[in-house]
Amino acid sequence: MTTDETATAGPAAGGRTDRRRTGRRRQRAAGAAAPSQPAWRQPRRRFAPVRAVSDDELEELHRGALRVLAEIGMDFLHPRARQLWADAGAEVEGERVRVDPALVTALVSQAPDRFTLHAPNSAHDLEIGGDAIAFTAVASAPYVSDEAGGRRQGNERDFADLVRLSQQLNAVHLHGGYPVEPVDLHASVRHLHATRMLLTLSDKVLHAYSLGAQRNRDCLEMVRIVRQVDHETLDQQPSIHTVINASSPLRYDHPMLAGILEYSSRNQAVIVTPFTLAGAMAPVTLAGALVQQHAEALAGIAFTQLVRAGAPVVYGGFTSNVDMQSGSPAFGTPEFMKAAMIGGQLARRAGVAYRSSNVCTANAVDAQAAYESVFSLWGAVMGGANVVLHGAGWMEGGLRASFEKMVIDADLLQMVAAFLDPVVVDDAAMAIDAIAQVGPGGHFFGAQHTQDRFRDAFFRPAISDWRNFETWDEAGGPTAVDHARRRVRALLDDYEPPRLDPAVAEELDEFVSRRVAEGGVATDF
Amino acid sequence: MTTDETATAGPAAGGRTDRRRTGRRRQRAAGAAAPSQPAWRQPRRRFAPVRAVSDDELEELHRGALRVLAEIGMDFLHPRARQLWADAGAEVEGERVRVDPALVTALVSQAPDRFTLHAPNSAHDLEIGGDAIAFTAVASAPYVSDEAGGRRQGNERDFADLVRLSQQLNAVHLHGGYPVEPVDLHASVRHLHATRMLLTLSDKVLHAYSLGAQRNRDCLEMVRIVRQVDHETLDQQPSIHTVINASSPLRYDHPMLAGILEYSSRNQAVIVTPFTLAGAMAPVTLAGALVQQHAEALAGIAFTQLVRAGAPVVYGGFTSNVDMQSGSPAFGTPEFMKAAMIGGQLARRAGVAYRSSNVCTANAVDAQAAYESVFSLWGAVMGGANVVLHGAGWMEGGLRASFEKMVIDADLLQMVAAFLDPVVVDDAAMAIDAIAQVGPGGHFFGAQHTQDRFRDAFFRPAISDWRNFETWDEAGGPTAVDHARRRVRALLDDYEPPRLDPAVAEELDEFVSRRVAEGGVATDF
Repeated sequence: MTTDETATAGPAAGGRTDRRRTGRRRQRAAGAAAPSQPAWRQPRRRFAPVRAVSDDELEELHRGALRVLAEIGMDFLHPRARQLWADAGAEVEGERVRVDPALVTALVSQAPDRFTLHAPNSAHDLEIGGDAIAFTAVASAPYVSDEAGGRRQGNERDFADLVRLSQQLNAVHLHGGYPVEPVDLHASVRHLHATRMLLTLSDKVLHAYSLGAQRNRDCLEMVRIVRQVDHETLDQQPSIHTVINASSPLRYDHPMLAGILEYSSRNQAVIVTPFTLAGAMAPVTLAGALVQQHAEALAGIAFTQLVRAGAPVVYGGFTSNVDMQSGSPAFGTPEFMKAAMIGGQLARRAGVAYRSSNVCTANAVDAQAAYESVFSLWGAVMGGANVVLHGAGWMEGGLRASFEKMVIDADLLQMVAAFLDPVVVDDAAMAIDAIAQVGPGGHFFGAQHTQDRFRDAFFRPAISDWRNFETWDEAGGPTAVDHARRRVRALLDDYEPPRLDPAVAEELDEFVSRRVAEGGVATDF
Repeated sequence: MTTDETATAGPAAGGRTDRRRTGRRRQRAAGAAAPSQPAWRQPRRRFAPVRAVSDDELEELHRGALRVLAEIGMDFLHPRARQLWADAGAEVEGERVRVDPALVTALVSQAPDRFTLHAPNSAHDLEIGGDAIAFTAVASAPYVSDEAGGRRQGNERDFADLVRLSQQLNAVHLHGGYPVEPVDLHASVRHLHATRMLLTLSDKVLHAYSLGAQRNRDCLEMVRIVRQVDHETLDQQPSIHTVINASSPLRYDHPMLAGILEYSSRNQAVIVTPFTLAGAMAPVTLAGALVQQHAEALAGIAFTQLVRAGAPVVYGGFTSNVDMQSGSPAFGTPEFMKAAMIGGQLARRAGVAYRSSNVCTANAVDAQAAYESVFSLWGAVMGGANVVLHGAGWMEGGLRASFEKMVIDADLLQMVAAFLDPVVVDDAAMAIDAIAQVGPGGHFFGAQHTQDRFRDAFFRPAISDWRNFETWDEAGGPTAVDHARRRVRALLDDYEPPRLDPAVAEELDEFVSRRVAEGGVATDF
């Protein structure tokens, strides 16, 4: 593993020139030092993902899902979607669509097994699929918290700071949505302001919500402006992703289907994710919840291919269980881990990239938050996830984004990446000469073999406190949250926006102003 | 997974009768309720362990280790050990022993790949090897802490309470040593008093330290008395285990070799564990540290077989890295995870059971303690560990046992066990009828399929707080440590000692009294 004291994958690595600069880099010299972190890169899984069910069991789950789609079917709450299904030969009866296994299989087989997601800064382009992994920031939380300010409703200011933090953290590869919902921005124009912030405060891959076709179109135009490409190029280069949730059980709602219609037709990336909480929106048995997840995912993936054969799509697994005492969802559980791994098997069976999540139920950034998150990552990473949503900052089952959790999670993600780095096995690394030189009873601190390598030999965490008890105690006994609070401040103090050509920024502003003046999109309230 | 509200694998499950009872069970009825926990059982790994290096790389590491033993050799600081090696044809020069690959391989091949460890209560007998896993409590910490009393030196009272807690926790399968060092017991007789406590406060498999042959003999006699078997039966039934550390690099000290001589000759279990911290007692490169670990482990395992062919032995992997800033050890790191997994590959290459650990560097029972521990468990469990030492309660790189960490870890271990439970895939579990019944837009709470199963459907954690924020906040916002503190108290309040035949207890007391009167063992101070 290589660590890099100074490199954060800044815009300098990108292909674009002539972006605007701020004076902050100069200011920084006198201020907080940029905390070190490993350089930007996508981790790669170098071993086979875990087979949590046998191949035979996998086929049973797969066949069960095909049976659900053929015999029970799903409700598609969008007339154009039903028309497409009917034209393709599916059985449409009211809102219900039943699809036979051959048609599902034929459609799903047209989906690519991997694709590239293009970022505003090409240095942040991402490979989605294969053995590559990408981590997103937390997304869609209604609440936000930090140690100083406590828990509060989502707002524009915290939104912007969380985007800045996501941009700073090399472990965060792309956005997964709004890190927190900026409810002080009116819903009719929120997507315009929020997406402009995502595109100017950050240069990582954009996410857009599918809440009606117009919002989808607006966001796509904004990313086109920032990437400075024409419409045809954009159709060749997926530059935005949207998460499409099934309204489980067995239903796709109108805005979600509109999102697929809009983005799949433009060759943009769709992450189809059934919301199958076992015991609530899905059977209480994991096998049942996974059959339903797989049926809903296959139907959604098939529908993307009905809209445009070859359109980039990802299989999303989100199956977890509820607390049967309260009925509320639980995350980072043993059931989540197993479902995450089997979800990966099902996604590979379908031949598409796989999305899982870094989730927890905890209310405090304590041991529970940490163990639930690492258990989630264990399930996701060993299950072969290619995209890990909510990678950094998620709390309370997704109800809250936490600044401190975001930087702790970023450290967890870097540790996972370091874990995935291969162990070099060659003569120099096996060090038999050094072992002979040091000999029985010696030590390796002073050995040349050590001196040549110790600086970059091991992962250096940003949060973990490795001091001995006495030194740590004298320093006030800081916990992980204390270290995280300081790191949040240092990263935000050190932040500078990515360079953006002033002409491009102006074009973006003009677009937003025009669309805001037009009233954005109609809302129900 | 089955959970069991009431069952703790108590002595009633054992084969012995007529043990002494206390009045505590009656007292308990009016006091704290026994916190629920899953019933006693050994978890089993049902998928292939991770191959973190390729088969070719594994062979390179293996051959490298054999080369180290042939060309560099190891120091064996015990004359009888050197004599045995010389008699077997090894090259002995002063304290140095060089063994050619054929001899190492021939000896190691005599070790069993699995065996049974017999507990004082036969319901707590353990399978060691194969896909079975056993977790020990924390061992050998010089300090102890709880939230109320803070950090203090180890002592008899805390020792006894930690043993009681280990007995109560179904996730703890056996002892790994003294959970904390009771330094108020004089070293000459400490093993007598401490082992009596382990055998009367608990009925789980015993560990004994190898600190001179007499201590080994005393502990073996004590377990023989409690198990009420003759010497011949004891020689057929491994009833005690000892951890033998190499004094890395490349040395076995006198007391450790005396331990192997004593216990392997009596067919008791030896866990050979090199102490190969990369960058300190081993090369700074993981491949180098693992070559050295493997050389030391193979030499130790081979030596057990030289003492008695077929004696039960376990391959211990403990390779981690040091913090290159301070030189102090770090645990639960990405390097630890990889080393734990490759250690498993090396152990299986050697054909013996594998030991790893649940370790962390943290000073506080905070997010760091939790994520370092779960990363450790990730490496150990996915690496195919059969024995996980320090499973519950370890802090500060092993310098401290924590009461709260012990019950949090026990919950982590239960979650790992639940994760390892297979997902049932059959018609009833796939629930297609229930999915049809509920249909699009419905929910599963009221379904008969749910009602029939919800009570035992999911793992129920003892520590995690799954309440929504408002309810949790009104309850004072308890963290995992707060829940752990309460759980420690409830488990200790609820504790009752395992039944022990009064005649057996008397025989044990007589033995201890006699050996104490004899002065125990000579010490250097």
